[in-house]
Amino acid sequence: MRLSRYFLPILRETPKEAEIVSHRLMLRAGLIRQESAGIYAWLPLGLRVLNKINAIIREEQTRAGAVEVLMPTIQSADLWRESGRYDAYGKEMLRITDRHDREMLFGPTNEEMITEIVRGYVRSYKDLPLNLFHIQWKFRDEVRPRFGVMRSREFLMKDAYSFDLDPVAGRHSYNKMFVAYLRTFARMGLTAIPMVAETGPIGGNLSHEFIILAHTGESEVFCHKDFLTFAPPPADIDFENPAALEEVVGKWTSLYAATSEMHDEAAYNAVPDEAKMAARGIEVGHIFFFGTKYSEPMRAVVNGPDGKEITLSMGSYGIGPSRLVAALIEANHDDNGIIWPEQVAPFHVGVADLKQGDPATGKVCAELVQQLENAGLDVLHDDRDDRPGAKFATLDLIGLPWQVVVGPKGLADGVVEVKRRRDGARELLAPADAVARIVASVRAARA
Amino acid sequence: MRLSRYFLPILRETPKEAEIVSHRLMLRAGLIRQESAGIYAWLPLGLRVLNKINAIIREEQTRAGAVEVLMPTIQSADLWRESGRYDAYGKEMLRITDRHDREMLFGPTNEEMITEIVRGYVRSYKDLPLNLFHIQWKFRDEVRPRFGVMRSREFLMKDAYSFDLDPVAGRHSYNKMFVAYLRTFARMGLTAIPMVAETGPIGGNLSHEFIILAHTGESEVFCHKDFLTFAPPPADIDFENPAALEEVVGKWTSLYAATSEMHDEAAYNAVPDEAKMAARGIEVGHIFFFGTKYSEPMRAVVNGPDGKEITLSMGSYGIGPSRLVAALIEANHDDNGIIWPEQVAPFHVGVADLKQGDPATGKVCAELVQQLENAGLDVLHDDRDDRPGAKFATLDLIGLPWQVVVGPKGLADGVVEVKRRRDGARELLAPADAVARIVASVRAARA
Repeated sequence: MRLSRYFLPILRETPKEAEIVSHRLMLRAGLIRQESAGIYAWLPLGLRVLNKINAIIREEQTRAGAVEVLMPTIQSADLWRESGRYDAYGKEMLRITDRHDREMLFGPTNEEMITEIVRGYVRSYKDLPLNLFHIQWKFRDEVRPRFGVMRSREFLMKDAYSFDLDPVAGRHSYNKMFVAYLRTFARMGLTAIPMVAETGPIGGNLSHEFIILAHTGESEVFCHKDFLTFAPPPADIDFENPAALEEVVGKWTSLYAATSEMHDEAAYNAVPDEAKMAARGIEVGHIFFFGTKYSEPMRAVVNGPDGKEITLSMGSYGIGPSRLVAALIEANHDDNGIIWPEQVAPFHVGVADLKQGDPATGKVCAELVQQLENAGLDVLHDDRDDRPGAKFATLDLIGLPWQVVVGPKGLADGVVEVKRRRDGARELLAPADAVARIVASVRAARA
Repeated sequence: MRLSRYFLPILRETPKEAEIVSHRLMLRAGLIRQESAGIYAWLPLGLRVLNKINAIIREEQTRAGAVEVLMPTIQSADLWRESGRYDAYGKEMLRITDRHDREMLFGPTNEEMITEIVRGYVRSYKDLPLNLFHIQWKFRDEVRPRFGVMRSREFLMKDAYSFDLDPVAGRHSYNKMFVAYLRTFARMGLTAIPMVAETGPIGGNLSHEFIILAHTGESEVFCHKDFLTFAPPPADIDFENPAALEEVVGKWTSLYAATSEMHDEAAYNAVPDEAKMAARGIEVGHIFFFGTKYSEPMRAVVNGPDGKEITLSMGSYGIGPSRLVAALIEANHDDNGIIWPEQVAPFHVGVADLKQGDPATGKVCAELVQQLENAGLDVLHDDRDDRPGAKFATLDLIGLPWQVVVGPKGLADGVVEVKRRRDGARELLAPADAVARIVASVRAARA
């Protein structure tokens, strides 16, 4: 992509309204723009990150056997009356009246609607297990939206819903998502620690939050530091093998980990002192097993092998992709800007022409872009007529993992400068070697 | 994808409420489910088609130089007061009050919001031209929603917005989208005819609708039949060459074409009798050039080369992907079900095992699926324990372009049966030849 034809509105000044670093950097680097309180437009660079996050989530959900659907944003109030949540949900629910005075709402979550869909079609025990997910915009009318997309009103959510014949099978479905979540976050370069959680308005008695550690995190967490050394489950784990999944879940729940709401001082004190870790964290995922809480009042039942009715056991599993963009920045930045992990970077490489208009630098830039794109990389080509200092500052701010700087001086020696954003390491390389270096790094990160 | 692990809820009976064939087939083939009047959930098979349509639209928008963003669904009423449309828009606008009694709305279109974004960042004539698009859910509170997703209340729209320094440059941006639309529809196997259109609540004085012909179309259209012989613009057309685009647009507007609202009997009578075509059509796209209608009241201006303020010239360009799914079915079906064009089919091939549980058919099916998937095709593997007749009926109903039937009898002769859904042509082929046959066809359709 040529920057001269792109839309990358960088802000030179730090926006006053932004209290946390991810919000400041998302505004400055032209990722988002606020349209109303807690409501954001995604600008081109931000949307690219969001889509890369969605792609990883989608792959891991599919690998774990979940099937993608897409439910509408607007729901009928009657559906929520069936479960009893319409009145209980309170002011966070955005309630709407249509032109025929029907009571509607902008969905904050989809337990009721997915239960309605499944009860409408699924009749037999043979059709189970079933896990359906979607990635759709939700709305929660927060009284004080803040921190940018970290706590916005309109936000993107991946929510999956599992349906099983009994709690034992339901537990296996829960474990599938538990394992899928560990893989999902690990692929984004994040270590997410599962912590026992309260179930709140979703309900049920089994729930884990997935928390990543960040100095600027919203909540206090206490855990055993060995979590940081755990390897994520491998790509070829057999999701149909309950014992294999139980082993992974067992390992990741064997050590102490709790947010301040669920903190148990006595249990934490049993952790050896050298392994104690008190830190700040950001919730990036939340999973629930709630059995028949919705299927019973909404009559989601199937016929069992003996012809008798079975009320379905359900769970739900949420990840907020829009919130993850902010969480990734909280965990990956420095004073100069964002430092994207390669797997979610909007572009893998920025190629800066230091003498725009010069035929020699122009030719090398065009060749570099072509070769990097042919290797499957996403490349941003800064072809604007701008000062080198401004180009460097922009590339640091937007945080692409690799920068290639093409200037007349280097070209006289046959080299370009390759800079790795994460540690600032610089190398002077022949253009072909620069391509090989970067392609190898991106491919390794994907594997 | 193994059908036994998929969610494909086929209806045996024709739903009474569906008046048109696309609505009936979308319900029967398990593409959508109605959640409220005019509000639908997309089931797995329908979502796959929707995503394929979106991918083609996205590629052609990008090729024409448009850059993707994503605006929120909920907008502030104040934004619409700036343009004067808040009161004018009427009851089709879904108006919402949030918990702080702020007036909001579910966006029916985004001229105001995109103008607000561009005026917030773009300061100089050097930053133009600019065309930003997004693919996002919209809401129009139709008084009588009907025909399924053809006229729904919550619907997906790709809307692009161009910003230029003057009407001449604006016309070039309009032509880019005109040409991109011709290519977009052609890639889906549709011949869309541009027809001069009324501008309605969007405004302006230059507008074209893109209409596809279908017996069951909603509106009457009159046109010269030579449109059906026109080749779409090639993939390598130079979108930066105004004359090249003007030539394409000139050709596609040189012959008579009008919907009944804009029909000019005298002009139509000048068409030679043998070239007259009166038919029914479905609108699949609509483009507008409206100059300063929004930029003037909303003060979207830039500094020109001489430092003087220039009010931006704008256009907007819409395609409804959710409506296109229905339009594609209206144009591609028979008594047995849907007939997907290869480019938008949810899966390219269905592989049916006629003797589920038999090691020989199972082995060949697994190999076929693997080889077709390795070639980049999307494959649905019917591995359910079901009667052959039911499997054939399902495959015909859901309309995958190719069917491969694997039975013990054929395998005894070393062959499988390959059926082309569009014309029912059948061939007995060795499995390797079946793969080669289908892969070649899908690749040709992509080119």
